[in-house]
Amino acid sequence: MSKVSIPKGFRDFSPAVMAKRNYIFDTIRKSFQLYGFEQIETPTMENRETLTGKYGDEGDGLIFNVMQRGDKLVNEVIALKNLDELTSSELTVKNFNPSVKNKIVNNFSDGALRYDLTVPFARYVVQHQNEISFPFKRYQIQPVWRADRPQKGRYREFYQCDADIIGSDSLLNEVELVKLFDEVLSNLGLKSFSIKLNNRKILSGIAEVIGRPEMIIPITVAIDKLEKIGLDKVNEELAQRGLSAAELEKIQPLFKIEGTNDEKLNQLGSFLADSEIGLKGIEETKFILDTVNSLGLKKATLEVDVTLARGLDYYTGAIFEVVSNEAKMGSICGGGRYADLTGIFGLPNMSGVGISFGADRIYDVMEELELFPESASASTQVLFINFGDKEAAYCLNLLYQLRAAGIRTELYPDAAKMKKQMKYANDKQIPFVVMVGEDEMNSGQLTLKNMGSGEQSKISVQELRIMNF
Amino acid sequence: MSKVSIPKGFRDFSPAVMAKRNYIFDTIRKSFQLYGFEQIETPTMENRETLTGKYGDEGDGLIFNVMQRGDKLVNEVIALKNLDELTSSELTVKNFNPSVKNKIVNNFSDGALRYDLTVPFARYVVQHQNEISFPFKRYQIQPVWRADRPQKGRYREFYQCDADIIGSDSLLNEVELVKLFDEVLSNLGLKSFSIKLNNRKILSGIAEVIGRPEMIIPITVAIDKLEKIGLDKVNEELAQRGLSAAELEKIQPLFKIEGTNDEKLNQLGSFLADSEIGLKGIEETKFILDTVNSLGLKKATLEVDVTLARGLDYYTGAIFEVVSNEAKMGSICGGGRYADLTGIFGLPNMSGVGISFGADRIYDVMEELELFPESASASTQVLFINFGDKEAAYCLNLLYQLRAAGIRTELYPDAAKMKKQMKYANDKQIPFVVMVGEDEMNSGQLTLKNMGSGEQSKISVQELRIMNF
Repeated sequence: MSKVSIPKGFRDFSPAVMAKRNYIFDTIRKSFQLYGFEQIETPTMENRETLTGKYGDEGDGLIFNVMQRGDKLVNEVIALKNLDELTSSELTVKNFNPSVKNKIVNNFSDGALRYDLTVPFARYVVQHQNEISFPFKRYQIQPVWRADRPQKGRYREFYQCDADIIGSDSLLNEVELVKLFDEVLSNLGLKSFSIKLNNRKILSGIAEVIGRPEMIIPITVAIDKLEKIGLDKVNEELAQRGLSAAELEKIQPLFKIEGTNDEKLNQLGSFLADSEIGLKGIEETKFILDTVNSLGLKKATLEVDVTLARGLDYYTGAIFEVVSNEAKMGSICGGGRYADLTGIFGLPNMSGVGISFGADRIYDVMEELELFPESASASTQVLFINFGDKEAAYCLNLLYQLRAAGIRTELYPDAAKMKKQMKYANDKQIPFVVMVGEDEMNSGQLTLKNMGSGEQSKISVQELRIMNF
Repeated sequence: MSKVSIPKGFRDFSPAVMAKRNYIFDTIRKSFQLYGFEQIETPTMENRETLTGKYGDEGDGLIFNVMQRGDKLVNEVIALKNLDELTSSELTVKNFNPSVKNKIVNNFSDGALRYDLTVPFARYVVQHQNEISFPFKRYQIQPVWRADRPQKGRYREFYQCDADIIGSDSLLNEVELVKLFDEVLSNLGLKSFSIKLNNRKILSGIAEVIGRPEMIIPITVAIDKLEKIGLDKVNEELAQRGLSAAELEKIQPLFKIEGTNDEKLNQLGSFLADSEIGLKGIEETKFILDTVNSLGLKKATLEVDVTLARGLDYYTGAIFEVVSNEAKMGSICGGGRYADLTGIFGLPNMSGVGISFGADRIYDVMEELELFPESASASTQVLFINFGDKEAAYCLNLLYQLRAAGIRTELYPDAAKMKKQMKYANDKQIPFVVMVGEDEMNSGQLTLKNMGSGEQSKISVQELRIMNF
């Protein structure tokens, strides 16, 4: 086995990449804490019944199953032994009875890998409800796994960074989360990005006004394409999906909504005048907008977007999405309000609102825009060159003096050729190299080389300890 | 499903526990970086063939398997359909043919969960050898999974914190790692702990001197019990394991070795006088000891321990183990030198040496000794009480002024009863609460309550911003 590899869709992270990833995670973590969110972690493996049925059929098919000792699997195989499907002679994976396959696949496993952070969070809240002081502001930064087909920018293991408040209806939470998007992304150096804001109640209102409340999802999906495919095609699609000419007529004013956020909300107000739920959605949106505006934003613009339609399966109020205006990339963050997340686990009426930062996409945006600072690295600051046993012994003492001063320092462990040691310093981007030979040991003055400029100078260890790195 | 749970052997971590865990991880990480180690991460899932055959039969049985779409599993079932085992009528998990079971279990899966950090590190080094500048000093802090029987203090998911240097034979690396044990554990507040030092070459020498080199492991295992079961029982066990009376006679001087580290090494030197490899082991140990002594240790004592026998399957030189002298607990750290870790993946002659911190055990020791500082928490510092819409709007502005000054601040999102809001502050251990009602809005002087002392005072937001938290 000389050709080693890792499974498709999974990744190794090198030191250079890790340093940048940590810069993102640390920035997010610090902002989460600044806003009063507390960290939890849930296990990698959940019971299968905790996860299944929460992500739709497609999602269920993407859950990774985990098996430990194999007893459950063997039981499944035994149960199958008398099935006709198994005694047919032309049996292949392709013609295998799908329901039998599902039975094996679904029942054999001892658990499943976390698919997102929201469902395990809901499970956590229900399980620990007696230890939690509500409203519970939690954050969670952990990997999730999806057996999706790997492709550029889509991985089977990736990190989510979530902040949620559960147990409070207050719209101040939505305001805080909008501010948190702005805080994190501004701190990461993004200069122009839009926080798009919509409300599930507005979308419900639109479907209601048209007279087809059950069509909320197809209608929203079609509207969502307005910018991309144009008005005619959208109308075509809506007709195909079953809207009558009269219903199509009714929806047209929606496509003409434009202007500032306030102008949009006013026009939307007329459109939704007869829908109680629609007007409620407008009122909520207006509160969030006005309150955020009174506080101001660092770099973000907040934008009402009636076509924003993510998470319609579970969001019940505000819906958020963040896009960079500078980089070509889909949404880099999202979120929304869900009226009843923990109901599925037997704890009803717990309203929550949460947001998620897509660390991998933010990473790609920051790379494209060259936003990572030089300091996004915790690499060695000083390397002592190793000239031999005696010199190394002398350097060891200096090494620990520098470390005691908090300076990240190494001694090259072998008395290798100078060229090799210098290459090591270069590869690791170590900014300063210290050389100590016979002369330096006698004088106590070390030779310091600035690897950037190539400049060499004499310096005492006392001076080195207080140098500004 | 009102009764929710997680799989056995897995854990949720609450905010209070996470804060303490992060204190440990952050301390370890900071020390690793100070010593010039760089972080990598490897994927949760490795190819099965990367992991199997590396941990012995018992270890192989504890590897968690992962399955995505189930095609491999179905193929296995199809292949089994004509087996006699499957057509027997009395088939149960207990009497199922073990080799057939193994075949299903081993072949069905698409991958396996990381069992430790060392094998994935070896795989990483081989796969990325052309991008790495050797010697490679890497650290890695990630969870690992073992399908072990769960019991007190033993989990199926737990973190390992590893630092390794690969591509250097120099004993300076061993010196650095001993110092790193001392650095990390002293920084965590441990006041008394022993770093035990042995060398595989000494153990080989002992078996050689007795004339039974192949017996190195049983001999070492027996010696290891000296303190626990006494000399007579150890001799009994050695006889049972096949040592002759003459061989037993030869080994007796070893049991009388005592004194300081230097004295022990001197006595051991006489004992191993005829073993080249044994003397080499003594020489290496002496170098590590002398060099560490010349540098000094913060809180640790370094102790030569000939009975230390961990990792005999792979260690080839120094062997380390760390125990707390204050808490009842097995080893909290370990490590050693392995001459050829990457050979299994086709890259021979890469000598490495590494250590591992057992975060869970360190956590338990720190809890027992009450070593976690109050500051091991990143919880909210100031809570604004919410008296209603108008007051909340006023507080929002103050909130962001405090946050801009780096103070972790929250506004309670709902105008709930005072008692409930105070309970929230108490539960979350928030040290200061700010109350802003009509009077405070008029005067601009906020009411600040110290939750520890119960004391209330008036303060301006400017004063609050520069307060020492």
